[in-house]
Amino acid sequence: MRLPLLALAAILAATPALRADEGMWTFDNLPVQKLKADYGFTPSQAWLDHVRLSCLRFPGGSGSFISADGLVLTNHHVGRGSVQQLSDKDHDYIKDGFLAATRGEEKKVPGLELFTLMAMENVTDRVAKAVKPGLADQEAQKARKIELGRIQKEIQDRTGLTAEAVTLYQGGEYWIYEYKKHTDVRLVMAPEQQIAFFGGDSDNFTFPRHNLDFTLFRVYEDGQPYHPKDHLNWTRSGVKNGDLTFVMGHPGATERLATSAQMAFAGDFALPTRVRLLERQRKALQDYAKLSGENARQVATQIFGLENSIKAMTGYISGLRDKAAQDRIRKAEKELQAKAAADPKVAGSWKAIEKALAVQKGLFAQSLAVNARSGAVYESSLLGQALTLVRLASETALPSEKRLEEFRDANLETLKKRLLVKRPFYPTLETAMFTFGLTEAAGNAPVPPEVKAILAGRTPAAAAQAAVSGSALGDPAVRQALMEGGLKAIQESKDPMILLAKQVDAPNRAFRKRMDEQVNSVLAEHGGRIAKARFAAYGKSLYPDATFTLRMTYGPVASYAANGTHIQPFTTFGGMYDRAAAWGPEAEHGAWSLPKRWLDRRAQVNPDTPFVFAHAVDIIGGNSGSPVIDKQGDLIGLIFDGNIESLPGHFYYDGKVNRGIAVDARAILEALDKVYDAGFLAREIRAN
Amino acid sequence: MRLPLLALAAILAATPALRADEGMWTFDNLPVQKLKADYGFTPSQAWLDHVRLSCLRFPGGSGSFISADGLVLTNHHVGRGSVQQLSDKDHDYIKDGFLAATRGEEKKVPGLELFTLMAMENVTDRVAKAVKPGLADQEAQKARKIELGRIQKEIQDRTGLTAEAVTLYQGGEYWIYEYKKHTDVRLVMAPEQQIAFFGGDSDNFTFPRHNLDFTLFRVYEDGQPYHPKDHLNWTRSGVKNGDLTFVMGHPGATERLATSAQMAFAGDFALPTRVRLLERQRKALQDYAKLSGENARQVATQIFGLENSIKAMTGYISGLRDKAAQDRIRKAEKELQAKAAADPKVAGSWKAIEKALAVQKGLFAQSLAVNARSGAVYESSLLGQALTLVRLASETALPSEKRLEEFRDANLETLKKRLLVKRPFYPTLETAMFTFGLTEAAGNAPVPPEVKAILAGRTPAAAAQAAVSGSALGDPAVRQALMEGGLKAIQESKDPMILLAKQVDAPNRAFRKRMDEQVNSVLAEHGGRIAKARFAAYGKSLYPDATFTLRMTYGPVASYAANGTHIQPFTTFGGMYDRAAAWGPEAEHGAWSLPKRWLDRRAQVNPDTPFVFAHAVDIIGGNSGSPVIDKQGDLIGLIFDGNIESLPGHFYYDGKVNRGIAVDARAILEALDKVYDAGFLAREIRAN
Repeated sequence: MRLPLLALAAILAATPALRADEGMWTFDNLPVQKLKADYGFTPSQAWLDHVRLSCLRFPGGSGSFISADGLVLTNHHVGRGSVQQLSDKDHDYIKDGFLAATRGEEKKVPGLELFTLMAMENVTDRVAKAVKPGLADQEAQKARKIELGRIQKEIQDRTGLTAEAVTLYQGGEYWIYEYKKHTDVRLVMAPEQQIAFFGGDSDNFTFPRHNLDFTLFRVYEDGQPYHPKDHLNWTRSGVKNGDLTFVMGHPGATERLATSAQMAFAGDFALPTRVRLLERQRKALQDYAKLSGENARQVATQIFGLENSIKAMTGYISGLRDKAAQDRIRKAEKELQAKAAADPKVAGSWKAIEKALAVQKGLFAQSLAVNARSGAVYESSLLGQALTLVRLASETALPSEKRLEEFRDANLETLKKRLLVKRPFYPTLETAMFTFGLTEAAGNAPVPPEVKAILAGRTPAAAAQAAVSGSALGDPAVRQALMEGGLKAIQESKDPMILLAKQVDAPNRAFRKRMDEQVNSVLAEHGGRIAKARFAAYGKSLYPDATFTLRMTYGPVASYAANGTHIQPFTTFGGMYDRAAAWGPEAEHGAWSLPKRWLDRRAQVNPDTPFVFAHAVDIIGGNSGSPVIDKQGDLIGLIFDGNIESLPGHFYYDGKVNRGIAVDARAILEALDKVYDAGFLAREIRAN
Repeated sequence: MRLPLLALAAILAATPALRADEGMWTFDNLPVQKLKADYGFTPSQAWLDHVRLSCLRFPGGSGSFISADGLVLTNHHVGRGSVQQLSDKDHDYIKDGFLAATRGEEKKVPGLELFTLMAMENVTDRVAKAVKPGLADQEAQKARKIELGRIQKEIQDRTGLTAEAVTLYQGGEYWIYEYKKHTDVRLVMAPEQQIAFFGGDSDNFTFPRHNLDFTLFRVYEDGQPYHPKDHLNWTRSGVKNGDLTFVMGHPGATERLATSAQMAFAGDFALPTRVRLLERQRKALQDYAKLSGENARQVATQIFGLENSIKAMTGYISGLRDKAAQDRIRKAEKELQAKAAADPKVAGSWKAIEKALAVQKGLFAQSLAVNARSGAVYESSLLGQALTLVRLASETALPSEKRLEEFRDANLETLKKRLLVKRPFYPTLETAMFTFGLTEAAGNAPVPPEVKAILAGRTPAAAAQAAVSGSALGDPAVRQALMEGGLKAIQESKDPMILLAKQVDAPNRAFRKRMDEQVNSVLAEHGGRIAKARFAAYGKSLYPDATFTLRMTYGPVASYAANGTHIQPFTTFGGMYDRAAAWGPEAEHGAWSLPKRWLDRRAQVNPDTPFVFAHAVDIIGGNSGSPVIDKQGDLIGLIFDGNIESLPGHFYYDGKVNRGIAVDARAILEALDKVYDAGFLAREIRAN
């Protein structure tokens, strides 16, 4: 059944659990009554079609068409990988920025694909029919998966579009989303990283901010600029404090349906434990970095990533410890438990989850020490690759559905590609990290037998040193040879990492099985049951957890209380120069220094130009690059972050302080006109 | 014995309890070794004499001489009362600012007196000798007081200076401080309140800030500008992040020696109870304000005061609930208890204080409802005045030392003056507040008999209405007639407020006696014993609690962690224009709007001029207007506030986040030169 898109079914059910403008709404189910009641605004079907078709999905982020000639707007940090990819030893576009003076100079980004959501089909009924009565849970799940795959392929064949299966409400609804794929995407303009990421990691996740975090691409088709049917017009008026805003984008993942026991587990135990581990890891990397400038360069990105994670997790923890918020969550949970009390399938699910968490607690330290699904084992990327090679040889001998998940046919190509990717390899760094990982693993009581076997009586440093220095796996050609050599090559290999991987293989499989059976599958099954009970009780008066599919959220430009005062809703270019002058160019490795161009052109720039604004919208990672529009549907801003108070948004939304942070549309034009001599782009954007 | 000032006795004792640059040090006891060890700087005796003699004490604040012609610098909010006093219906110097174009136009402030600390004498030994062996505690205390008074008078007679007795370390030391009094003080320049208090109550107690919170006075003698022996030279170089700064001023009061039980009592019970009361009171005033614009005008200052108190107390509470800080305090307390365990005079003092707090808890609601020592009784200023009149008639019939404290000879003049002061009187407001106060008092269970008597079966509103409308005490002439008429006039008065006051008198005295005997005297006595034990254990390696006498604190200009990021150590004029543009002129009743002059002169102002800086110094209320100097002794800034994290400083100092907030000296010159056309003052200041 093909549903008309966005049939604005009136949502009659009350939504008592929702506060403020909470919600990452799917386009088929916008809370139009609430929107009308609160803001006196009802979007027309044409308005909704227009904004949806103007949106784009980036790898890990969001974007939009902003001109009739296929100009695309997203964040600098979403386009950063492409900008990096196009740089070479003579051109550092990350540092210096990039501007194509003519269309001929626009640079194609190999491999970059963008997606427009053309249609969505609700296939819930058909999926339901595929489940024969009396099937056990796991069998039913499998039948649904198979049916979904079948429908997906049918639709793809029929439409020629890219079809993706989407599970909403943890199984309350199944959809196929149909995308037009754009494969010729060219870089048009990128500002300097220093102004895009002004304030560096210190200001990351905070507000007030001063980041020109945008990049322009252009979609081509048949070698010519693509003319999208829809693109967002640029605002003529700008936005002011209190104005209603809408954000369309692809929020990646939330856990708002986690039980209060799961939130307590995360806030009181799992996240603090993880943060302490990351802090120790940061310390290990910092010690390594201190040894030389070259060492420091090698690990700068890793340290930055750790800082970022520590900051984010610390924000999660503080949200999970907010008593008022957790009281609200427990109250809603009790309400749901009361409604679900009569259903034997779900009544015991909360207890089942608590039991699984108790098991997880006992296995937690070990699960942190080794996670063979990620690239590294005991923080050694070589050992991780070795384990993949060992398993590749044995797993591929099995039929696909019997293999470990990452070795199944659907995933095999990606896995092999990742295994052979050419990355800089630093043996000293590898040794340091393996030493750290072994030290962590050996800190468990009792020490796991495989760790004892690896150490063989030596210190972690000695064991790591021996394995890394004796291994040739740092060379992708060696890995490729082992991969192609199959079981025989693995059996004959004397590479110490391969030998260690063989020791790790069996106990790691056993541990993984235990985690899957006693923890992960229980959490998934009973989490799903609770989610379905919730869907049964409240239906589509609620929104589904984030799934990296197109959503809309809305709310006003708004100040909030923090730091003892009211935080200003806007910043200006003048505020950016204030920061730069206040800190000076040296502080925090130049975090608040300005690119030369911005110093040279200061007199031309109007200091009162609005730069960044904060608005009460419900966004999360994946929304980066989302367009912000007003009631007219005009583009007024560009999401690039949330404030520090938005971090608990992973678990719940607090409209009092949770804010999206967006580059003001006026800042982009002012910069193109006055700083980058790119008036021709500003004119293209203005020519609505 | 007259001690040479500032004999820089080397402080040899370790100071394990002190963290960072904690300390409000007396000038006779600076931590010179720590200063040398931490900053490689040792002030000379001449340096110290020079800066001390440049300092001034204002009523409730601090200031300094900044020119050879007696020009004085303090905060606008310290000088605000004077600026208000000189305003009239045709001249609103608060709103419009003030500038004397010539010395002839400088305006004398009637009654304003400033003080320079010329000398300090340690009289501890002589005071000790006045206590005969075997005296009971209270007798001994009395003997000390009498002896101190005697010494004070002797010194005053001998030197012609104003001598004041100062008790340090809760009785560990007794001093006489000798001041030169300046009685002809004239207003020279004041900026507009709007730029002095930019950001209003929202930004109060916070950072980053943008407040030109300064005012200039000039001291005259014999009708001519006074030429002080010492004045602070203005910086030529300015100050930068990390530079060492010194602050000299008059911190008013701290309770850093409170026991952990007292801190818990304050943080968990007393302050939250008080905050809730103030919030209810604010609500009552806001309800009153809503009725008309005139009503709103009448209570604006009161509401502002309440907001300020609520904000400050909320800051105290958050400090008192900081687990790490309280753990440190308990650890230090345990250390002291161990040292004092053998002394029977103090060993039981902690328990005695706990017992008194338990009593206080029971009496707390009632003590909040009526505080006859302050101006109002049950929030009625008329009833407060009536009670004073009733008691004045009976108390003055007794010998001075037998009277309630505020009626003793030394205090009588002030009390009478306050009673007769002419203030605007608004019967409707008075009724609303009395209604509120009676409602609060009647909320106690059991309702106190005197409250029952006042209500006499009526609602609080009816009782208040009847008393206020029937009373003539709003007229100062009526109060004066009753005061002068003595006991007879009071006995014959039929004024309903006088009649109510007679009902309140006896039970209020009884309640006050109970509070004094069972709570206040116990806390004072045992608090004193603990303080003396502390002084015995650590001596002058520690600093005494604040006493509104001259102290020095020091520390670097420094960023700190807040709001998820590092807070910039400086702000600039550009940042001020950013705030103004970001908020617009309407937000929060124009809190971030700029005076016209600042908009008109924007092009002349260098936006990068440093405006306000944050530094790690240990200050508190009373330090307002304190000069900030560098190692050269040059003036680099002007204290006007602390950040929100400094509020717990009332109880303890946390150098990680507690910051003093100072106007940068460069901002003052830039404003005088470019905005106020007062280059002649800038030249006088620069002419060191």
